[in-house]
Amino acid sequence: MINGKKVLGVIGGVGPMATVDFYKKVVEQTDASCDQEHIHVLIDGNTQIPDRTASILAGDERPLPYLIDSARRLEAAGADLLVVACNAAHYFFDKLEAACSVPLLNMIELTAREASRRGFRCAGLLAVDGTLHSGVYDRAFQAEGLTLIHPDKEGQRLVMHLIYEEIKAGRPGRPEALSSTLDDMAKRGAECFVLGCTELPLVFSDCQDFVFLDPSSILAREAIRALGYRSTSNEPVLTEAVHVPF
Amino acid sequence: MINGKKVLGVIGGVGPMATVDFYKKVVEQTDASCDQEHIHVLIDGNTQIPDRTASILAGDERPLPYLIDSARRLEAAGADLLVVACNAAHYFFDKLEAACSVPLLNMIELTAREASRRGFRCAGLLAVDGTLHSGVYDRAFQAEGLTLIHPDKEGQRLVMHLIYEEIKAGRPGRPEALSSTLDDMAKRGAECFVLGCTELPLVFSDCQDFVFLDPSSILAREAIRALGYRSTSNEPVLTEAVHVPF
Repeated sequence: MINGKKVLGVIGGVGPMATVDFYKKVVEQTDASCDQEHIHVLIDGNTQIPDRTASILAGDERPLPYLIDSARRLEAAGADLLVVACNAAHYFFDKLEAACSVPLLNMIELTAREASRRGFRCAGLLAVDGTLHSGVYDRAFQAEGLTLIHPDKEGQRLVMHLIYEEIKAGRPGRPEALSSTLDDMAKRGAECFVLGCTELPLVFSDCQDFVFLDPSSILAREAIRALGYRSTSNEPVLTEAVHVPF
Repeated sequence: MINGKKVLGVIGGVGPMATVDFYKKVVEQTDASCDQEHIHVLIDGNTQIPDRTASILAGDERPLPYLIDSARRLEAAGADLLVVACNAAHYFFDKLEAACSVPLLNMIELTAREASRRGFRCAGLLAVDGTLHSGVYDRAFQAEGLTLIHPDKEGQRLVMHLIYEEIKAGRPGRPEALSSTLDDMAKRGAECFVLGCTELPLVFSDCQDFVFLDPSSILAREAIRALGYRSTSNEPVLTEAVHVPF
């Protein structure tokens, strides 16, 4: 709490442009008519957090102390509610949450709830290898009674190339390279696609052929509401269980 | 300094979308090929800083303690270099700088130096009433031997409307409403226009008719270099005098 207002703390920087995008969504989705009606947002854009996919695949927890340090920096600075603007980092969610003294919103669970609320029964997951391998999305979708399918091996290689060799490398993203992967997953039953890496909303948006669920946009909307601010969206609130105490 | 890396602290939130835009410029202008090569950026998006124009016109210093609090929060969290992503707030620059224990870059002076480096002799200023009235840009341009001209009264009313009633209010900006104001200033000698409010680069970019100087883009570039990172730009460095000690 700073100047009598609730403060959102963002553990970000991985990647940095994805954090810019998340911050933009918070501002865009807050119903405000002047600076002072917007949320006080603290961002720790910690680009030094070790690569999440590398650690998940190696079975180590190298990113965890960095995530905890970020959370503590944000809490010490005044954050009342925390979010992590990185899907793969949610592999460490339970341990990170246990280290936090303020609530931490879970982007993965919110996305599964949103998919359920919108009536989807089967979704395709687009995410980095670490997120896929960790099973965080599979468990969250299963808990909602939904089916989640993954790309085939070549499709997953293309997803990794788009995220690591194009977007994170500062090159133009070519999402059209994934069109046959999306077609294949749609044939296997995917009614929508989860943009399960915060870099992906930078290059994908709803189009004639496919519906995308954007976890960082859902997270922004729910963070706004959990802090008691008005969202520009009329969708029902997903975070009844979150209480930001004051 | 965090994890052995230099950290940029951004006093922001006024307005919030302008801070999103500044953060985006830092990421875009850093020459990096993966997350970890980007700068660790801490942002205090403090939307509760009182309106700068209102205070400058009233002759009070209400925003100053808020700016100092932001600086101290960022320093305590580990920032090695500070910037203020708001032009009007530079009216309080000297007092803010005196309260900081790490260097604070001056966006106004950097912009005047950039105008001089690019060979302009006369520029038009687009900014809020507070920035105009404070004279911060006039003094900085005069120090470089350059002429700075202001819009006429009706033109300034249109600038204020664009910033407060459109961009800050979350409505679509209509910069074309300023075309005759820009024409008039060009006739009076303006060879380029300073986008002297961090909201303005959200709606203006170089076009066939006019050249714009974007202070927040110049500030992003110089902050990257002052921290020892590589910028994607080949322009000469403007901040020889800034030393970020370690």
